[in-house]
Amino acid sequence: MAASHPSLNDLPLRDSLRGQSPYGAPQLEVPVALNTNENPYPPSDAIITELQQQLAADAARLNRYPERDSVELRTALADYFSRQTGVEVSVDNVWAANGSNEVLQQLLLAFGGPGRSALGFQPSYSMHPILSESTMTEFLNCPRDENFNIDMDRALEAIAEHRPNVVFVTTPNNPTGGLTSLEDISTIVEATDGVVIVDEAYAEFSDQPSAATLLKSYPNKLVISRTMSKAFDFAGARLGYFVAAPAFVEAVMLTRLPYHLSVLTQSAAIVALKHSEDTLATVATLAAERDRVSAMLKDIGYDVVDSSSNFIFFGRFADAHQVWQQFLDRGVLIRDVGVEGFLRVSVGLPEENDTFIAAAREIHTS
Amino acid sequence: MAASHPSLNDLPLRDSLRGQSPYGAPQLEVPVALNTNENPYPPSDAIITELQQQLAADAARLNRYPERDSVELRTALADYFSRQTGVEVSVDNVWAANGSNEVLQQLLLAFGGPGRSALGFQPSYSMHPILSESTMTEFLNCPRDENFNIDMDRALEAIAEHRPNVVFVTTPNNPTGGLTSLEDISTIVEATDGVVIVDEAYAEFSDQPSAATLLKSYPNKLVISRTMSKAFDFAGARLGYFVAAPAFVEAVMLTRLPYHLSVLTQSAAIVALKHSEDTLATVATLAAERDRVSAMLKDIGYDVVDSSSNFIFFGRFADAHQVWQQFLDRGVLIRDVGVEGFLRVSVGLPEENDTFIAAAREIHTS
Repeated sequence: MAASHPSLNDLPLRDSLRGQSPYGAPQLEVPVALNTNENPYPPSDAIITELQQQLAADAARLNRYPERDSVELRTALADYFSRQTGVEVSVDNVWAANGSNEVLQQLLLAFGGPGRSALGFQPSYSMHPILSESTMTEFLNCPRDENFNIDMDRALEAIAEHRPNVVFVTTPNNPTGGLTSLEDISTIVEATDGVVIVDEAYAEFSDQPSAATLLKSYPNKLVISRTMSKAFDFAGARLGYFVAAPAFVEAVMLTRLPYHLSVLTQSAAIVALKHSEDTLATVATLAAERDRVSAMLKDIGYDVVDSSSNFIFFGRFADAHQVWQQFLDRGVLIRDVGVEGFLRVSVGLPEENDTFIAAAREIHTS
Repeated sequence: MAASHPSLNDLPLRDSLRGQSPYGAPQLEVPVALNTNENPYPPSDAIITELQQQLAADAARLNRYPERDSVELRTALADYFSRQTGVEVSVDNVWAANGSNEVLQQLLLAFGGPGRSALGFQPSYSMHPILSESTMTEFLNCPRDENFNIDMDRALEAIAEHRPNVVFVTTPNNPTGGLTSLEDISTIVEATDGVVIVDEAYAEFSDQPSAATLLKSYPNKLVISRTMSKAFDFAGARLGYFVAAPAFVEAVMLTRLPYHLSVLTQSAAIVALKHSEDTLATVATLAAERDRVSAMLKDIGYDVVDSSSNFIFFGRFADAHQVWQQFLDRGVLIRDVGVEGFLRVSVGLPEENDTFIAAAREIHTS
């Protein structure tokens, strides 16, 4: 295909997308990558062995469509979630998709859309506004306070004023690492007529009970979103899920793409869930490393936000992007999420964290 | 989670979704399943062996996010597509997602949306209107003529009157199996200001050149959508793609979910593409079986639409759904797509086709 190449501006793109850039952290080859909150520990040998066997068996039936409703996988997720949170749920409460991004997109396509709005408390997961926009849902930001906590007075005011159809609460919050209490979540749920999506992508790293404990009280308003990308060290397999009353599962079955989860994705996730004890063994190690790195950063003189997650938000910098580049120059890729004065670093292997700390020390004294 | 269960009606669902049912053919356990146009031949031994090795290697790195832009996979797709169609394209012309459904959704999110419309020629792929609706794009139907061909006069009138932002042309058409000529496609492209998506999911089963031969003439209007689910016997792996000018790839990068293609999906598709000669060897067999089954159906006395695909549309029935049930009672699952008087049967293995023909004979004389 030679001939003239139209530019993006020559195409009849939807107006609201004009001038935008694709989402995504730079994918760079560096010695130490601490920028996407992955779990640095690979799957256990037991998982790898069983995955190999399972995927080998699957290969021969790839000419057939996958089971469309992923019942076996959702049952395995329900079992795991019940054990992890102490809240008994069943297959009817659980829905899965290709990463929590697709889960959230399916929910927004059902409960958002034109003429509807979603409220979030930024800085928070940057895909919430992007997914709202791409599903034509107006995104409303109620900024967090100077300690990156939800300002409850302002939150209740915003809910009363805008009556959002969806409210996002991320806890532990990404990129800042702090928690929203169950009490505050209840208050928010009671204040709104909309659907409250509690994004618990990093919940396994925290000691706080899951907001799933509130599902019984608010079955028609509350959805808990989770992922296997973080604690579960399964980012490459792309598996997100939510837990809610069965009616929410019925709702997203109207907006999901048929056969959205491949045979391989379903199988791989089922195997990983069977070995959840192995995987989650790394969580305690990462939490301990998080506390060690946080303490050292404070010691060096950085401003460090308390984290219940597998990353640390630290500052303050006159020019955060310049500091991000200074880390990169030292072979350490961290994340500039665009919050003034702060950067985010994922907790890696102990030796990676040591390299990061050495760089942080050098940069601070330079 | 005990307590009260809200029903779907109790949730604040988007109005346009109320009362709808989820898309999907029944997934039933039957001796002969000829309902979803899968390729009945499993992947070759060479593919299975290499897939096992590749997926085993991948298992150990599933804690890391996949390469976000799938460059290696898109390069392999470009090579395959160039060979299959004779139209030279490169990685910059190709975009991939989880099935062609996700490809089409990403395109509609970029070029459709509220206040915009998509025109299609029904009966055609039933996901086109569903994906339009779920992306808040108004779907306009310009009905095919009584032989299930596009009525070109009516098509040009509809385009002039409604000025749709997207036009879908499915060739070979699903569920009817017929072709739209390249000449008619050109006429449609020239008549519209919108984006024309030529859905070539079944192109490998046809002798007609790909509409990709027109890309050079209409780089800013034409998109060719394809899938590995049909000819490629890879439905379980969920891989769809499109070929177009690079600006279209830039456009969907604004609406795609980041990391939408898992490590496993990317690897599996790359392996299958390496062995495309193996896979496509089944295409000739299936085309020959299609012609055999078509001839026998005509012989029995059915009304059979000429097919350039791996399925056959046949009738006429006073009550198509009742006939669908009669096939099912004989252990043969075919597809009632909701078109009055007609049913669709996929071409299976020779012995499956024989069972289908025996049932068709019995039903016709009963």
